Amino acid sequence: MNEIAPGATIGILGGGQLGRMLAIAAARLGYRTHVFCPEDRPPASHVASIFTCARYDDQAALERFAASVAFATYEFENMPDWTVRFLAGRIPVRPDTTSLATTQDRLVEKKFARSVGAETVAFAPIDASSDHAVAPTITGMPAILKTVRFGYDGKGQRRIESATELAAAWREMGAAPSILEAIAPFEREISVVAARGIDGTFVAFDIPENVHANGILRSSSVPARIDGRTRDTAISIARAIADGLGHVGVLAVEFFVLAGGRLLVNEIAPRVHNSGHWTIDACATDQFEQHVRAICGLPLGSPARHSDVVMNNLLGDEWLRWPELLRDPAIKLHLYGKDESRPGRKMGHYTTLSVRRPGA
Amino acid sequence: MNEIAPGATIGILGGGQLGRMLAIAAARLGYRTHVFCPEDRPPASHVASIFTCARYDDQAALERFAASVAFATYEFENMPDWTVRFLAGRIPVRPDTTSLATTQDRLVEKKFARSVGAETVAFAPIDASSDHAVAPTITGMPAILKTVRFGYDGKGQRRIESATELAAAWREMGAAPSILEAIAPFEREISVVAARGIDGTFVAFDIPENVHANGILRSSSVPARIDGRTRDTAISIARAIADGLGHVGVLAVEFFVLAGGRLLVNEIAPRVHNSGHWTIDACATDQFEQHVRAICGLPLGSPARHSDVVMNNLLGDEWLRWPELLRDPAIKLHLYGKDESRPGRKMGHYTTLSVRRPGA
Repeated sequence: MNEIAPGATIGILGGGQLGRMLAIAAARLGYRTHVFCPEDRPPASHVASIFTCARYDDQAALERFAASVAFATYEFENMPDWTVRFLAGRIPVRPDTTSLATTQDRLVEKKFARSVGAETVAFAPIDASSDHAVAPTITGMPAILKTVRFGYDGKGQRRIESATELAAAWREMGAAPSILEAIAPFEREISVVAARGIDGTFVAFDIPENVHANGILRSSSVPARIDGRTRDTAISIARAIADGLGHVGVLAVEFFVLAGGRLLVNEIAPRVHNSGHWTIDACATDQFEQHVRAICGLPLGSPARHSDVVMNNLLGDEWLRWPELLRDPAIKLHLYGKDESRPGRKMGHYTTLSVRRPGA
Repeated sequence: MNEIAPGATIGILGGGQLGRMLAIAAARLGYRTHVFCPEDRPPASHVASIFTCARYDDQAALERFAASVAFATYEFENMPDWTVRFLAGRIPVRPDTTSLATTQDRLVEKKFARSVGAETVAFAPIDASSDHAVAPTITGMPAILKTVRFGYDGKGQRRIESATELAAAWREMGAAPSILEAIAPFEREISVVAARGIDGTFVAFDIPENVHANGILRSSSVPARIDGRTRDTAISIARAIADGLGHVGVLAVEFFVLAGGRLLVNEIAPRVHNSGHWTIDACATDQFEQHVRAICGLPLGSPARHSDVVMNNLLGDEWLRWPELLRDPAIKLHLYGKDESRPGRKMGHYTTLSVRRPGA
């Protein structure tokens, strides 16, 4: 695929807030977007040129979608492989199926991270054929049991306190292929949000420090409290991962930072990421524009940051704080236009900007 | 009208780039938009929740539009009075018909500016009943003949070199109600882009210095090369104008700066303005978000500027420079997604950011 010039229509699989912010960034550069997802009137549909509400296995709808776009991207990785393979047989899909297949499965993802030289927590597969007695000896206890697929925001995972709980917990979680992961004794969590171009160019944003609660991101603060060596190592690992995948577009690599700066790869997201939302308000190029640049074959933009920044998610009814947030001149509010607020649902976020410290 | 909460649908009359950037800003704050205009698939339609393509005198379409939105705003002032009055009888329209009626007519606009204490160039009405011999004695020669209505980007105006040309030129321009304006011996042109809230709060952005060619804005540079007294006077005049109109929303007041800092009001635009586009990339709150805040009855945002900036318009085929512009890390590119490029047509703009000079 050569450069895709402004004016073209970009297909976006998925209609959530990531697709919404991607569609806005695409529009700013003169692209049109066609959003495809099974939900009716999702956040991205309100800012897209074209919206198709259809199931991910609706072959006729996918054919029409493919015929209407120059190429396609996806805003989340938990969609049927079949859908992306079907499209990839007709139009370019960026990032391609390698990035998706590798990150859709927690076991494949961890093995891949190790294959490019990164460390991860200890882990063991849990399925019908695996030895449920051995896994806890690998991970220690307590540990986290996670389904290998379709987990996000803490869904499909459960803390296991002792080896005897494991088999029952696995059956209660549906006896799906799963992974038992050791709990990392981390000092902090960080993520590298970066883009890789079609030509292999790699550009990382400054590194945020992330705080999760119940498996859901609460805040990202930039800069993270890490030293220069840890920062450089994290970026090198993210680059090795992006290169190893042949990734095109933005990706995020989440790390645990242990004592002494030791880094464990926690998760890889082959897409724009919640921990990169602060780039909209604090950087020359934000992660959404950067993704559009990468997947369209354009030169990557400058990630230069003009302010220190803290991003907080607004979960569930927290978005009702909007009147107070709008009154604070240091705050930028972003709401996703979702029809219904549910506990834990990401309804928006806000960033608090401060003048960058000299020399920081 | 009380505060309109995020989630509501804002009606936008007009579908050009100003409507497009307004719709994006509205979406960021969680609002939906319904764009109404007679052109098929205009720039704003690609980022709106709902798009109606209908004539401004299509009563049934306007009724449906009014029924679907919480209130309406407009992105340009050259639309039939009738349309806005029709809507204003059904839903709130912000800014209201006073702002529109005053700025749609160059004679009314100039008289209004003088009524609030501002200076303007010398002018005289030109119509069938006026004395075409007297007008040139008021304005001096050469002068500019302009139709009082429906002019923008240099359309509907013509330079008159001598009094003897006037009557013929007026007939050639359609013998419409017109105005003869003296040519101001200006040192520079500036504009105040500011917002006035429902409660009368007034917030101005830093003042850009504007360069026009053939009546079309070419560039806006911030800060303008003016002293503090000139700046304060310009902002006071803009505030008097906004207060005098009872304006709600963003407005722009264009000034000629004469020797010694004397200020003449040139034009008033009751809306977001091309000379404020740099606020997207250089300010905490941009003019589009500020307009949304004002018309929704929300607190106005901070106009704080983090960078010095130059905005250049991309007219006609100049937008084809996009590959080169995307390679410059100091440049932010904005394209409007217009189907067709015509000479002088605004296809996009770009801003060049530089770190703000200490103490500037």
